[in-house]
Amino acid sequence: MKTQWLDDVDLLYPTLVEWRRDFHKYAESGWVEYRTAAKVAGLLSDWGYEVKAGKKVIHEHARMGVPPLAFLQEQEKRALEQGADPKWVARFQGGFTGVTGILETGRPGPTVAFRFDMDALDLEESSNEQHLPEATGFRSINAGMMHACGHDAHTTIGLGLARILMQLREHLNGRVMLIFQPAEEGVRGAKSMVEAGVVDDVDLFFACHIGTGPSLGEVVCGANGFLSTTKLDVTYRGVASHAGARPEEGKNALLAAAAAALHLHGISRHSDGASRINVGVLTAGSGRNIIPDSATLKLETRGETSTINAYMVEQAMNVIRGTAVMYGVDETVLVQGGAQSAEPSEALIPYIRNQAKQVPGVKRIIDLQSALGSEDATFMMERVQQQGGLASYLIFGTTLAAGHHHERFDIDEDVMKIAVKTLVHCALHTDQLTPILHAKP
Amino acid sequence: MKTQWLDDVDLLYPTLVEWRRDFHKYAESGWVEYRTAAKVAGLLSDWGYEVKAGKKVIHEHARMGVPPLAFLQEQEKRALEQGADPKWVARFQGGFTGVTGILETGRPGPTVAFRFDMDALDLEESSNEQHLPEATGFRSINAGMMHACGHDAHTTIGLGLARILMQLREHLNGRVMLIFQPAEEGVRGAKSMVEAGVVDDVDLFFACHIGTGPSLGEVVCGANGFLSTTKLDVTYRGVASHAGARPEEGKNALLAAAAAALHLHGISRHSDGASRINVGVLTAGSGRNIIPDSATLKLETRGETSTINAYMVEQAMNVIRGTAVMYGVDETVLVQGGAQSAEPSEALIPYIRNQAKQVPGVKRIIDLQSALGSEDATFMMERVQQQGGLASYLIFGTTLAAGHHHERFDIDEDVMKIAVKTLVHCALHTDQLTPILHAKP
Amino acid sequence: MKTQWLDDVDLLYPTLVEWRRDFHKYAESGWVEYRTAAKVAGLLSDWGYEVKAGKKVIHEHARMGVPPLAFLQEQEKRALEQGADPKWVARFQGGFTGVTGILETGRPGPTVAFRFDMDALDLEESSNEQHLPEATGFRSINAGMMHACGHDAHTTIGLGLARILMQLREHLNGRVMLIFQPAEEGVRGAKSMVEAGVVDDVDLFFACHIGTGPSLGEVVCGANGFLSTTKLDVTYRGVASHAGARPEEGKNALLAAAAAALHLHGISRHSDGASRINVGVLTAGSGRNIIPDSATLKLETRGETSTINAYMVEQAMNVIRGTAVMYGVDETVLVQGGAQSAEPSEALIPYIRNQAKQVPGVKRIIDLQSALGSEDATFMMERVQQQGGLASYLIFGTTLAAGHHHERFDIDEDVMKIAVKTLVHCALHTDQLTPILHAKP
Amino acid sequence: MKTQWLDDVDLLYPTLVEWRRDFHKYAESGWVEYRTAAKVAGLLSDWGYEVKAGKKVIHEHARMGVPPLAFLQEQEKRALEQGADPKWVARFQGGFTGVTGILETGRPGPTVAFRFDMDALDLEESSNEQHLPEATGFRSINAGMMHACGHDAHTTIGLGLARILMQLREHLNGRVMLIFQPAEEGVRGAKSMVEAGVVDDVDLFFACHIGTGPSLGEVVCGANGFLSTTKLDVTYRGVASHAGARPEEGKNALLAAAAAALHLHGISRHSDGASRINVGVLTAGSGRNIIPDSATLKLETRGETSTINAYMVEQAMNVIRGTAVMYGVDETVLVQGGAQSAEPSEALIPYIRNQAKQVPGVKRIIDLQSALGSEDATFMMERVQQQGGLASYLIFGTTLAAGHHHERFDIDEDVMKIAVKTLVHCALHTDQLTPILHAKP
Repeated sequence: MKTQWLDDVDLLYPTLVEWRRDFHKYAESGWVEYRTAAKVAGLLSDWGYEVKAGKKVIHEHARMGVPPLAFLQEQEKRALEQGADPKWVARFQGGFTGVTGILETGRPGPTVAFRFDMDALDLEESSNEQHLPEATGFRSINAGMMHACGHDAHTTIGLGLARILMQLREHLNGRVMLIFQPAEEGVRGAKSMVEAGVVDDVDLFFACHIGTGPSLGEVVCGANGFLSTTKLDVTYRGVASHAGARPEEGKNALLAAAAAALHLHGISRHSDGASRINVGVLTAGSGRNIIPDSATLKLETRGETSTINAYMVEQAMNVIRGTAVMYGVDETVLVQGGAQSAEPSEALIPYIRNQAKQVPGVKRIIDLQSALGSEDATFMMERVQQQGGLASYLIFGTTLAAGHHHERFDIDEDVMKIAVKTLVHCALHTDQLTPILHAKP
Repeated sequence: MKTQWLDDVDLLYPTLVEWRRDFHKYAESGWVEYRTAAKVAGLLSDWGYEVKAGKKVIHEHARMGVPPLAFLQEQEKRALEQGADPKWVARFQGGFTGVTGILETGRPGPTVAFRFDMDALDLEESSNEQHLPEATGFRSINAGMMHACGHDAHTTIGLGLARILMQLREHLNGRVMLIFQPAEEGVRGAKSMVEAGVVDDVDLFFACHIGTGPSLGEVVCGANGFLSTTKLDVTYRGVASHAGARPEEGKNALLAAAAAALHLHGISRHSDGASRINVGVLTAGSGRNIIPDSATLKLETRGETSTINAYMVEQAMNVIRGTAVMYGVDETVLVQGGAQSAEPSEALIPYIRNQAKQVPGVKRIIDLQSALGSEDATFMMERVQQQGGLASYLIFGTTLAAGHHHERFDIDEDVMKIAVKTLVHCALHTDQLTPILHAKP
Repeated sequence: MKTQWLDDVDLLYPTLVEWRRDFHKYAESGWVEYRTAAKVAGLLSDWGYEVKAGKKVIHEHARMGVPPLAFLQEQEKRALEQGADPKWVARFQGGFTGVTGILETGRPGPTVAFRFDMDALDLEESSNEQHLPEATGFRSINAGMMHACGHDAHTTIGLGLARILMQLREHLNGRVMLIFQPAEEGVRGAKSMVEAGVVDDVDLFFACHIGTGPSLGEVVCGANGFLSTTKLDVTYRGVASHAGARPEEGKNALLAAAAAALHLHGISRHSDGASRINVGVLTAGSGRNIIPDSATLKLETRGETSTINAYMVEQAMNVIRGTAVMYGVDETVLVQGGAQSAEPSEALIPYIRNQAKQVPGVKRIIDLQSALGSEDATFMMERVQQQGGLASYLIFGTTLAAGHHHERFDIDEDVMKIAVKTLVHCALHTDQLTPILHAKP
Repeated sequence: MKTQWLDDVDLLYPTLVEWRRDFHKYAESGWVEYRTAAKVAGLLSDWGYEVKAGKKVIHEHARMGVPPLAFLQEQEKRALEQGADPKWVARFQGGFTGVTGILETGRPGPTVAFRFDMDALDLEESSNEQHLPEATGFRSINAGMMHACGHDAHTTIGLGLARILMQLREHLNGRVMLIFQPAEEGVRGAKSMVEAGVVDDVDLFFACHIGTGPSLGEVVCGANGFLSTTKLDVTYRGVASHAGARPEEGKNALLAAAAAALHLHGISRHSDGASRINVGVLTAGSGRNIIPDSATLKLETRGETSTINAYMVEQAMNVIRGTAVMYGVDETVLVQGGAQSAEPSEALIPYIRNQAKQVPGVKRIIDLQSALGSEDATFMMERVQQQGGLASYLIFGTTLAAGHHHERFDIDEDVMKIAVKTLVHCALHTDQLTPILHAKP
């Protein structure tokens, strides 16, 4: 059997490339992946998956960093114009662009979930002739949106995996779930799927990323060292007044914001590990001679652990509130994103190693490697692990034309073959994990 | 008759000098004027005044800047050792060192009040041989206390006035009240006498100061331009922690105080007139490697009007509270002193001018002059004026050996003669004011 | 004779209205008054004035707040399209939109200068039907530029004055100079004309404003109380860095700017009079997770006197430099505007009163009135007075449809008649001032 | 032979206890260890060591945190009164209380150095009856000085080691050096001995500490994780002025210091590892109504590596200078202490393990353990390692009555036996290290 499906993946490869380039060309940023998610939902549905979409898999109030309604509506229209299936777009309306596909084998066994993110970055793609997507005609046609972090490939890998697993359904046990998540950039989307209960019954959880450093043929079984982070937008509202004639009647939002910036950067270090704070943007005031009545800050905290990040956020909230009190202004804080720290389940590492070992093209397998950065699949990993399940985060190395988030980012698409094959293996042999899973508390 | 009492003042003069030097030698700072007040009360009583003292004329909770109990007790003991009458000291126990003397003529007429302050400064008097009090043996023997603002002379003038008025009782109408107030320095005492109702029935109110600029023989009928002020002590309490090992467990009182200092100085100017803020003292922390758990600020606000000062205080309270919120520390604010702005009653200026005109030695009479500074008799003036009475604040010029509050401050004592005579005149001719007073709303 | 020219002004009035509405419709903001200045220069020249324009009357490096070159060029084009005479526009090229017209009588006598400002505000004019300029078709057609402070009328008054004085040339003595200044808004232009020497030989100087409070028929002979002011733009340049990965490599321009804002507002009050400081705009940073490498502040200082303002600026420069040192960033400070405090020459007040008295329609003459605000004609007044000349600033009251700088600002145009007549009188009777002027030091 | 000297240590033990209690009773804080150092120098000299003392082993200008001269002189007197040998005290005069003893074997071999610190803490020892030193009569009689960190035992161990090694001189090779260092508390003394060249020729270097966590019988071969640190005192000098009358004439040192405190705490984290900053003490101003003309800060920086600490210091200096510029005040920075980060030489760990293994009473040997804190022996370790030598820092566990720096700190004195025996072993078998030492670069 095994030989057979490995060949099938190879046969499927041209289609994977086609899908990936299609996603790339119609790049859609977080919460407006209408066309991408519609295509995913359509294919899963066609192949026989039980598809859940929209508010069934996205908890409305746990979404973070959702764009204004006008933008959402404009993007829905754009997606429809670009050929998205209206039936699915209707399900996603208002920025609920999540999809899950479930394959119920009817046989006893664990629930195995695979998670893929679908969103592009807010970035204008390079039109340089040397840039392959430009040269071969699949450069993003959506202004200011570009797949410069490989999520187009992630979505494609998820589809490839879905296609093959459906074929292999008789060889699977328990339940397989494919999770297609919106808005990973800015760490905005995963939490809303967790809060909708998507991973509540998951026993085995696999997330993955391509690129990030390792070369093509290298597989990391467990990425660790994710920094917990919180993204906050702060707005101060005060009272304007003429600075020469009636300065005492103003409530100075600019000074509240400036004070916040300074005092936020003064939050004490934490002895348990690394922490970070950055006020990246401050905008305040309207005219030279007017006491400024509005100010906004964009900031982020980070922590080596979720506890450290929580400490940073708590202190930050004190500073924000205190500065508002000082200047008699009103403050509003919006959480625009967040992620947890996470560690892969130790017991899963050798399992993944064993699966990757069997994949043609895999040249080197690394047990653990620090990820250095933030990722919101950590919310899902945390939930699965809290409930006794096992979770890991794989990295599939590939050749990069330029660094992540660069306007000339591009990948060696062969990585998609390796990723699909490794993940199919991970789905096929979960019986090897039975002893561990039965030992769940 | 007039000639007679003017001569009597001259006859009394050596006694005035003796009293003043006695007060000077036994200088007592605010709220511990036990010996001074006891002597005043004793003499007034001997002369036939109805004397009220202690809690009858001082409202306990309206006192500001009262020293710690231990200090009060130690000073009571000191005063007794320096010959204070135990009977009176008992009345003042606990820092209630106010006295009033009332002379009820039984004849119809207004209530006329004269106010004198009795306290010395927290200052070590010069032991320089050229300093007259040192040279002639009446330098303060109380360490760290010195009459460097002339209140020894004020108290003496009050006694001289009392002595003469009792003699002239048959020529007086209505009621005369002499108010001897503690703790004018730091503007701490007057409010407590006002709150005790001392000036509630007063129709005519006179306060005075010697020195302050004009030369001997110059009399200012109405000092104006008193700045309203509030003196605040702020304490922050946080949580100490080892700065290297557990910085995140600290609640940093030093940073709260430092932030307060900066933001207090950033309170906006007021377009209605001059304002001031000063954090004069900041003390925080105990060791280089400990997150500081305590900090104190001594600050003051000022305003050209009471409204402006109230604005400054309100803003300051916001800053103090906000900084505590920012750093998660507790704040305590103690009002240690305060004064109002005040203007002399316009109608009283020509009256005073007419009285001063008749006094030998008066060379120049100035209607109005800016006082530049703060004075808590303003609380009394405000209360009297609010109730339809008239009030003014006189200045009697004199030669100064050094500026006010200087360790070598000294006066030409002749000013006491001029002051007593002018004030006696003011008490004698209140019938001239009848038309105005009857016009009270 | 007198009756004659007063009638001539009335005959000219419809033309004045036409000119004013033309200027209003083609409103031009500071340094781009190409069309306005070209029309002024053309008319003065036609009438026989010796006209100086462009760099001859504007010192290049003393100009403040000049827009970017691209904007200047675009506006030159716009002015030409709107019918400006290319000959004159060429003289103004690059933002040198100043004009003077000189009438040399050949007879001995003083040099009398009248100054008018020509620029509009950066404001979109109301399109409300009730707004007269909209209703009658002379609303500004230049987007974002509007005569909402009456400088269209000022320019017209200047032209009316020029027209009549040329007619009366046989009745004049000495020399008459008409100064048409660009960029009064933001107090940017006057200094450059002073530095070009325009008022160096002026004996009598008159500036004026319409509106500002008094009603139609009221004339203020001398406005005083102008606040000295300085407008500064501050830019900080630092080094960007990833806030999570390499925070220590950043040089944080945002924090330098925030610190500057706080410490600028903490500059101590001045005991000699009112001062002001306002950071009206702060913009910093580019992305939430990037250490901000750039920041800009727009701020202004004010002082009741030029000395107080100079103190504020000096302190501000210390703060700006100190914050740059603290954060290791580079700072640039651009002076974008400035004005002095000024007092009208006392001797000129009765002269002006006497002239205004003779003008039909003048109902009330006020000697002095506080102007409350800043005005850069003060640079010219200061220079004239320093050299022994006399200077004043008149206000001609008028009915306003809405306050100055409001999108529905409009005036009663009759004020132009009153103003022209008063100023003609001022030019005609300078012999009355001979005794005073001869007494010049 | 071995058995013999081990017994000798046991025989010496009562004397060790006597010495330690004597040092404890006459506790002397940093730079005033006159009596302690005199006793050490006297004994070393008596036993035949070549003794160097005072300026020969202490570089004057590399000393940090030296007390004022008056205090030094007073303490010299105190030491003499407490029986210190005047001959040695003369050598230490002015705070040069360092001693080295050298034993030259005349045989080839490495130079082996052992370092011991001698100073007490600025702490009042407990007079609680349960506190053994109180109960048995050796509580510190020097007010405000207490051996609460075990340096009395360190000094004693050094003497015990010296005594035994001299006995074993025929069994030693090369050169043995015993270093007795002043002022380790506050990390003030080691650098001055390094700069005096004391460890320039050292091939093998051993420092040690008792207590700090491990229990009696546990030995740590190499403590690591020492934080690099710098201790700074900052003074600002401004100009005082009356806050009400002439605020603009002041130069506010309090605000400069407050600003420094805030901005110092805002220094960015370093991505290479932990950093710390703490302003532990801030004192500023003299009176509520005076613009403060002086302010002082006591602060410290730390870094996981010397590079990180250097970064913190560099940033701190920018902040300090910048705040002085902002407020127009003068700043002075004094380095009051400092230490480097350091790692034990890897090659030395197994050697020490082998020596400790042979010591009776040693129950557990730990190769490496984090020290968490700062220690200035790191300066010596760094110098030795830079020159190709090997260095380590041992910890000898013991039972503690209370934590280090606690007023009831006390130790189980048996640790001294274990320490002396381990260190004698370390001195005896240096031939085992010959291959490594010869491999020096």
